[in-house]
Amino acid sequence: MAFYEHLGWRSVRVPAGTTPGIGPAVWVEDPLGFTVEFFHQAALADRLQQRYDLRRGAEVARLDHFNIVVPDVQGAYDYYSSLGFGLSETIEDGQTLYAAWMYRKQTVHDMAFTGGAGPRLHHLGFFAHESHCVLRTCDILGSLHEEAHIERGPGRHGVSNAFYVYLRDPDGHRLEIYTSDYYTGDPDHPVLRWDVTDPRRRDFYGHAVIPSWYAEATTVLDLEGNPRPAREIRQVEEVTVGADGFPAR
Amino acid sequence: MAFYEHLGWRSVRVPAGTTPGIGPAVWVEDPLGFTVEFFHQAALADRLQQRYDLRRGAEVARLDHFNIVVPDVQGAYDYYSSLGFGLSETIEDGQTLYAAWMYRKQTVHDMAFTGGAGPRLHHLGFFAHESHCVLRTCDILGSLHEEAHIERGPGRHGVSNAFYVYLRDPDGHRLEIYTSDYYTGDPDHPVLRWDVTDPRRRDFYGHAVIPSWYAEATTVLDLEGNPRPAREIRQVEEVTVGADGFPAR
Amino acid sequence: MAFYEHLGWRSVRVPAGTTPGIGPAVWVEDPLGFTVEFFHQAALADRLQQRYDLRRGAEVARLDHFNIVVPDVQGAYDYYSSLGFGLSETIEDGQTLYAAWMYRKQTVHDMAFTGGAGPRLHHLGFFAHESHCVLRTCDILGSLHEEAHIERGPGRHGVSNAFYVYLRDPDGHRLEIYTSDYYTGDPDHPVLRWDVTDPRRRDFYGHAVIPSWYAEATTVLDLEGNPRPAREIRQVEEVTVGADGFPAR
Amino acid sequence: MAFYEHLGWRSVRVPAGTTPGIGPAVWVEDPLGFTVEFFHQAALADRLQQRYDLRRGAEVARLDHFNIVVPDVQGAYDYYSSLGFGLSETIEDGQTLYAAWMYRKQTVHDMAFTGGAGPRLHHLGFFAHESHCVLRTCDILGSLHEEAHIERGPGRHGVSNAFYVYLRDPDGHRLEIYTSDYYTGDPDHPVLRWDVTDPRRRDFYGHAVIPSWYAEATTVLDLEGNPRPAREIRQVEEVTVGADGFPAR
Repeated sequence: MAFYEHLGWRSVRVPAGTTPGIGPAVWVEDPLGFTVEFFHQAALADRLQQRYDLRRGAEVARLDHFNIVVPDVQGAYDYYSSLGFGLSETIEDGQTLYAAWMYRKQTVHDMAFTGGAGPRLHHLGFFAHESHCVLRTCDILGSLHEEAHIERGPGRHGVSNAFYVYLRDPDGHRLEIYTSDYYTGDPDHPVLRWDVTDPRRRDFYGHAVIPSWYAEATTVLDLEGNPRPAREIRQVEEVTVGADGFPAR
Repeated sequence: MAFYEHLGWRSVRVPAGTTPGIGPAVWVEDPLGFTVEFFHQAALADRLQQRYDLRRGAEVARLDHFNIVVPDVQGAYDYYSSLGFGLSETIEDGQTLYAAWMYRKQTVHDMAFTGGAGPRLHHLGFFAHESHCVLRTCDILGSLHEEAHIERGPGRHGVSNAFYVYLRDPDGHRLEIYTSDYYTGDPDHPVLRWDVTDPRRRDFYGHAVIPSWYAEATTVLDLEGNPRPAREIRQVEEVTVGADGFPAR
Repeated sequence: MAFYEHLGWRSVRVPAGTTPGIGPAVWVEDPLGFTVEFFHQAALADRLQQRYDLRRGAEVARLDHFNIVVPDVQGAYDYYSSLGFGLSETIEDGQTLYAAWMYRKQTVHDMAFTGGAGPRLHHLGFFAHESHCVLRTCDILGSLHEEAHIERGPGRHGVSNAFYVYLRDPDGHRLEIYTSDYYTGDPDHPVLRWDVTDPRRRDFYGHAVIPSWYAEATTVLDLEGNPRPAREIRQVEEVTVGADGFPAR
Repeated sequence: MAFYEHLGWRSVRVPAGTTPGIGPAVWVEDPLGFTVEFFHQAALADRLQQRYDLRRGAEVARLDHFNIVVPDVQGAYDYYSSLGFGLSETIEDGQTLYAAWMYRKQTVHDMAFTGGAGPRLHHLGFFAHESHCVLRTCDILGSLHEEAHIERGPGRHGVSNAFYVYLRDPDGHRLEIYTSDYYTGDPDHPVLRWDVTDPRRRDFYGHAVIPSWYAEATTVLDLEGNPRPAREIRQVEEVTVGADGFPAR
């Protein structure tokens, strides 16, 4: 808490169980405007990894990452660098960092930054083992005539190599189910930098990104549970330069 | 030839080898305006089915079907019914037959009809064994920075259940690589009729069809090798009613 | 019935519903000693093909074929040839036909013959769309600690190219779940003949076949529902020559 | 080097390039009898991760782990624990540790121990992204009539959940191609302990392990490049107790 107090940001202690299964915790409003929870104890859930008999749908193996919308991607990168996160991939040009993927665990990312009005949550990313799991998620939604919840994909990202689908849950929050990113644990793991004009950066098959995917995101709450206002983007937007969301431009 | 002469359409005999590997043949301009080849002898190619060591890319197992653009889908259906083709699926409403899938072999189709200015060839369809073969095709095109050849997909059709991708070859001709249609050989196999307003009919995941997929198709040649002019569509268009190609309407 | 009476084999008419969903039928004891049902009417079941939400486990798409154990494979081949079945693949050498795969529909087989004491039923074969469906079947059985029901596989057959697993149901009857055989509908479709000493014929990966797979099969019943005695094999056995079931020889 | 000298084991410095692409290194004969290389510099190879156009066969994503044969599994576990490796899974009973899987990176293992005459190398393990990559490896070997190089599998391990195949290279060294193990990076990641009598521990589908898989392994070389003699196993063998390699017992 002292670290954040030193930075001038608010924090609060919350008792065990405030988040189900989580021990005593500290909630902080971080410099990017997101409420972050720190804890040192979590209840173990049953190991269902080989309970194939119980698996349905997406067969998610784990929660993998958060993608957040920030008005200043360079600032978000600087802050997470200061926390010890490594950089795996970027979208950039000579002037601007449009997006960045950063990791603590040995995968492509635990946190990614999308440029836009923020703080907002872009999506939660869940890992599945194989591409047919991603397809199955879509097939089930089609079967149930709930295909309107499939916002984007299936497709492959250039960035991260993930084969993905993006869903919107009934409240509009965005979820990604993906597979096939890669190991980043080598100490000299090189950064992969994508040019913002490469049409494969957001979709390796070159398809236009649906505009809602750039425009819409989830409001975040402050320590009191009130919506935090989003500041307008301070930099040139990727969609203005790369135009992959707006084929008519 | 007498059958077509009786119908008043032109035909010609061509010697063996006019089409490589094909014996003596008859070419006919059929009532729909397409040049069709009849033959009774074809050279056998090497059996490469288990030459996994030679497989690259799409791993196509066979040429499966033709999809043609016709200005009068009901007329195309009537003609192919008269030839003994069975009907597997349709897109329709109370007034209009917008599209139909018809078969001689025991799959969903050998011929399908898309409403539009015609005669034109919409695409050739190639069967692959599994969905990862379809994805691999796309991945390779992305690797080679040839992603512009991926017109539509990957995705799953509601009609036929096919998991598909549509490619445009360097001359603009459209190819489909697909998997997972089904057996239609039972003598009482029932027709599946899709309502033209069901957003899943053309993409089971509910995504808008890219406009070029409806609008563009390949000119066909007459018996002398000259382009045949396309007659304008005589019926209401699926894209006008179902609107799946034009999300802004 | 006259055809079978002429052959001197017994037959009987049974009323609609004797087999659930099947109309009035004729049961025949055929020349190979199997009871075969002929019918012209079957109730349509719900179309569950795109009900991905209901799918569990093997995701079987259809019942595909029967494999029967006969003491004289050449005799079984001759009989089914006389019924108009086509031949897709064999296991043979200069002297003996050890096994044969025959088809009416346009796949590798509706009927296959395995040499051994018969008449007995070797297995029922069910088609699934992709290899991960076959693996999923095995994974679920492992999860439930019912792995003893997995008799053989997963693996790929040389014959038919099928990626397979063989299960034994609680009564000991054998089921195959497989994918990736091929189209045989061309009128000049060539026969593929495997030498009985090729270790890939029964398993393309060269693994020994578990002895129970050759030795055990299901007793068949006569028209009165009594077990039919199995006649001993009249020819050299594939396992004696090819030895793929008995690695210690 | 001082650490190993303190332990009484020999070590030597080798110049850059002794192992291609590796900088100055130290080679050590470790307490288990294996020659281990320590380095701090490695040349970066081209990033081929998205060069799907170049991929053939197994589509290996990375070298993942070593499995070694040791006469005393508990001793190997103690030694690697002292180096800071975590324990993910074991095969054991009340008396004996038969096998153990240990990790530094956040996967199931970097090192695994199989009980037997040692020091010997059991196999190198390579990660592939999806199960169809494992099957493809086998299919290609079958196509080339090199199926004798497929020693065991495809199948799924109970331990690690890996879908695997084991190959023997032309010199007899064993390689594993596998997919679908799991993330172990949580600080309280629990150990999964398999009973030595559970037939699913080595094959989740319950199949017997081929005897060569337990019996055969690669001789290791000492610092001078001479073969190290293997000491006999000092403990009860898993194959004696669990018997999964020897179905006839």
